[in-house]
Amino acid sequence: MMKFVEKKSSVCVELFKGERLKIVDVEGGQISSFQCVFKNDLKDYLSSGRTLDYLGRMNFEVGDFLYSNKSKPMLILVEDTIGIHDFLLAPCSRESFKILYEDYECLYGCEENLIASLAEFGVKFDSLPTTFNIFMNLEISVKGSLEVLTPASRAGDYVTLEAKDDLIIGFSSCSAPDSHGGKFKRIGYEILS
Amino acid sequence: MMKFVEKKSSVCVELFKGERLKIVDVEGGQISSFQCVFKNDLKDYLSSGRTLDYLGRMNFEVGDFLYSNKSKPMLILVEDTIGIHDFLLAPCSRESFKILYEDYECLYGCEENLIASLAEFGVKFDSLPTTFNIFMNLEISVKGSLEVLTPASRAGDYVTLEAKDDLIIGFSSCSAPDSHGGKFKRIGYEILS
Repeated sequence: MMKFVEKKSSVCVELFKGERLKIVDVEGGQISSFQCVFKNDLKDYLSSGRTLDYLGRMNFEVGDFLYSNKSKPMLILVEDTIGIHDFLLAPCSRESFKILYEDYECLYGCEENLIASLAEFGVKFDSLPTTFNIFMNLEISVKGSLEVLTPASRAGDYVTLEAKDDLIIGFSSCSAPDSHGGKFKRIGYEILS
Repeated sequence: MMKFVEKKSSVCVELFKGERLKIVDVEGGQISSFQCVFKNDLKDYLSSGRTLDYLGRMNFEVGDFLYSNKSKPMLILVEDTIGIHDFLLAPCSRESFKILYEDYECLYGCEENLIASLAEFGVKFDSLPTTFNIFMNLEISVKGSLEVLTPASRAGDYVTLEAKDDLIIGFSSCSAPDSHGGKFKRIGYEILS
């Protein structure tokens, strides 16, 4: 049964080895920032640097593994209807809003929301260096410039990730103005065993 | 006076606000992986995600700020004779050698070396999610594929970073076979006040 991450918030779930988490852009054009740890090693979390190094590319395909900082496989991408995600940038935060937006005040970005959600499961983060930003449409030019475009995802697009070990996972409905294509929306999710 | 990071090792230094650290590729074609924390907040360290987000590009220019996870400016790039560096990948590690290289056994990569060097100054890391990989020549294709090429830096190329606050900095002479252009070499450095 589909549950929801309300707009500008996040949730935390347990996903056991072999279980699958389906994350759905229910209305379209909404980013979900994602971070997780191993249940048996709360300090080892999903790593952008390791994952991109081992993949040898910045785009994602079904069958790709997502690795932890300690080089352990955490998840495998088993379904993906859109294929456009980011694993380069940090999650939005109160401080990032001050730097990137002139007229947007928001006390809780994805970083604050995810840290709070994960803390409910005993997972302590002082900050979140990077997150897997599902549905984020980051354009990288040949000259290396970066631009966050409106997500290409439409209503019903989804990704499904299968756990390679027991995990605690936080994921958001992103609070950044650039992330939602004009309107903050909720994100759907379902755990499939 | 120039000091040296011996090949396949790292050092840790204190750099006070306004001081400059010059990092020199003395023989050419050698990467140095770099990470640092604030002296007054040992948990807040240099962030690839924040820095790239605020720069809006993946290439570096003199005058660029490098930011912490908590969005505070840590360093400014004041000199750079090469301009080709990476802020995407994790430092090499014992586990990464097993995954990326068939015939290379090495117990201590930049991650292990940097964690040990920083620990001597009371800075504790369980892992290093990303490092600023000075002189790393990471080619990103239009389709998003990543390839670590031989560094473009020649003997004598250098970068100089000025501290925006009191910092504790670890930096290495990289231990990865892809990083050195055929021979592991030492890295030179100098603190300029």
